Amino acid sequence: MEFNDLIDAHQARINAALNRYLVGLPLQDHPLVEAMKYGALLGGKRLRPFLVYATGSMLGADLQSLDVPAAAVECIHAYSLIHDDLPAMDNDQLRRGQPTCHVKYGEDTAILAGDALQTLAFSILLDSPLPDVNSQTRIAMLSELARASGVAGMCGGQALDLAAEGKQISLAALEQIHRHKTGALIGASVRLGALCAGDAGKAALPILDRYANAIGLAFQVQDDILDVIGDTAVLGKRQGADQDLGKSTYPALMGLDRARIKAWDLYQESLDALDTLARQSLNTAPLRAMASFIIERDK
Amino acid sequence: MEFNDLIDAHQARINAALNRYLVGLPLQDHPLVEAMKYGALLGGKRLRPFLVYATGSMLGADLQSLDVPAAAVECIHAYSLIHDDLPAMDNDQLRRGQPTCHVKYGEDTAILAGDALQTLAFSILLDSPLPDVNSQTRIAMLSELARASGVAGMCGGQALDLAAEGKQISLAALEQIHRHKTGALIGASVRLGALCAGDAGKAALPILDRYANAIGLAFQVQDDILDVIGDTAVLGKRQGADQDLGKSTYPALMGLDRARIKAWDLYQESLDALDTLARQSLNTAPLRAMASFIIERDK
Repeated sequence: MEFNDLIDAHQARINAALNRYLVGLPLQDHPLVEAMKYGALLGGKRLRPFLVYATGSMLGADLQSLDVPAAAVECIHAYSLIHDDLPAMDNDQLRRGQPTCHVKYGEDTAILAGDALQTLAFSILLDSPLPDVNSQTRIAMLSELARASGVAGMCGGQALDLAAEGKQISLAALEQIHRHKTGALIGASVRLGALCAGDAGKAALPILDRYANAIGLAFQVQDDILDVIGDTAVLGKRQGADQDLGKSTYPALMGLDRARIKAWDLYQESLDALDTLARQSLNTAPLRAMASFIIERDK
Repeated sequence: MEFNDLIDAHQARINAALNRYLVGLPLQDHPLVEAMKYGALLGGKRLRPFLVYATGSMLGADLQSLDVPAAAVECIHAYSLIHDDLPAMDNDQLRRGQPTCHVKYGEDTAILAGDALQTLAFSILLDSPLPDVNSQTRIAMLSELARASGVAGMCGGQALDLAAEGKQISLAALEQIHRHKTGALIGASVRLGALCAGDAGKAALPILDRYANAIGLAFQVQDDILDVIGDTAVLGKRQGADQDLGKSTYPALMGLDRARIKAWDLYQESLDALDTLARQSLNTAPLRAMASFIIERDK
């Protein structure tokens, strides 16, 4: 399958899985659940579910089981976007070319929809059948998700990011922000996919961490580059938004050319990690293609 | 031990447990973690931890194990208070006689602190040792916590409450709000305490649900009564706040006298449930005293 077809297939798959979980909730047609659906089903690259599917499939897990962590991780991501867009946070009006959740449903409902999507992430991973995963491994998967979401991960990164607004920070501090804010959940996506695959998955974790760390940071460097050179219509969010908020970015700290080189180096690092797995006759092509997509994308 | 001493002992115990978990987080001294500590350690009745401790102890679980679900439940409660107080929600400036979290730390940090406290609740219940609880039961406990927190529980109740503001609603609709908004987490507190106690706890669940449903609703009826007749200085929050928001309350819908009778009937219902357990030679005195405290309290 061509990479673009694989992306489409995984997108369709995660959208169907998320929809199943969301229509199974009580209070259907209530603004809370409408706002949760809006936030979770608005589309987007679905990078994290792709990583769950591609990593798990490479290691022998079946796609039906992988739907579970893929949906859980994407609910965490969706909740974080709803809360990040709030007036008290980044105050964004536009997300993926559409009004943000609080613009459409009001700030109160958007806060609650984010809260409930976080809870739903855990419910999905707690309550869905995973025939090949024992209870201890399920708990390990839930722990990964919680660690990547909380103070040690995404929430901590968002707080570090807020604290750095309008300040000149070092490259090391910028990297710390991104390793928390986006890197942790990207790492958890890869790990959850692997943990669905039993012992083969566990053995691959250290190498997968190298891959995930590299593409997680590359993703952010490219995001910063696009904030400088991207086009609002293509991005689906306002170009220059980070600069206006006084956020430090890789291009601002190291210049655009060196930021591009950094993205390329991280890409090479991710391929190096995958080479080790390829030598074990694992099909690393989808993860390889995703790494290349991350540094070549224009949105 | 006298009931007041037992309340004090459990309060001291949960405060110590919460503090242990909070000082174990990364990013100490960062505003995010400061705001989490502020929200979680500000005090309060600690009703939910009390129910975990009292129920679990009655059924034979040890207090050290009960610290785990007690802290998890209280983190969920603390996060909900932080988010409920936000300007876009109830817009409260005062909580337990102190500035609310967003007044002290800013709205952005308060949103994140609530988010991270929710995650912490799951991390605590996922990662803490529970020597007498197997992995399946731990997952069952986590599922209870998630169900009580999400759309089917607290978040759903908060959304129903927001939707009902300024509207005349029926008594049945008001009861639905409260069974979700406060009843679900009170029910989960009792259930998590019981699940820590193994088979004896599982057998007692149906009766404990009757008890928890009754005191959960009684708690809310009394809360509504206090909003009418209470004193701002004693309450630690503004008397009349619900009326000003146009919220339906039991006194508003059925009159103050009938609301008091309803609270009393629910109290009797909770004692009936406990009688069944007392006949099995279980020490129901703390749960009985808590039921009476709930309808007699003045704050």
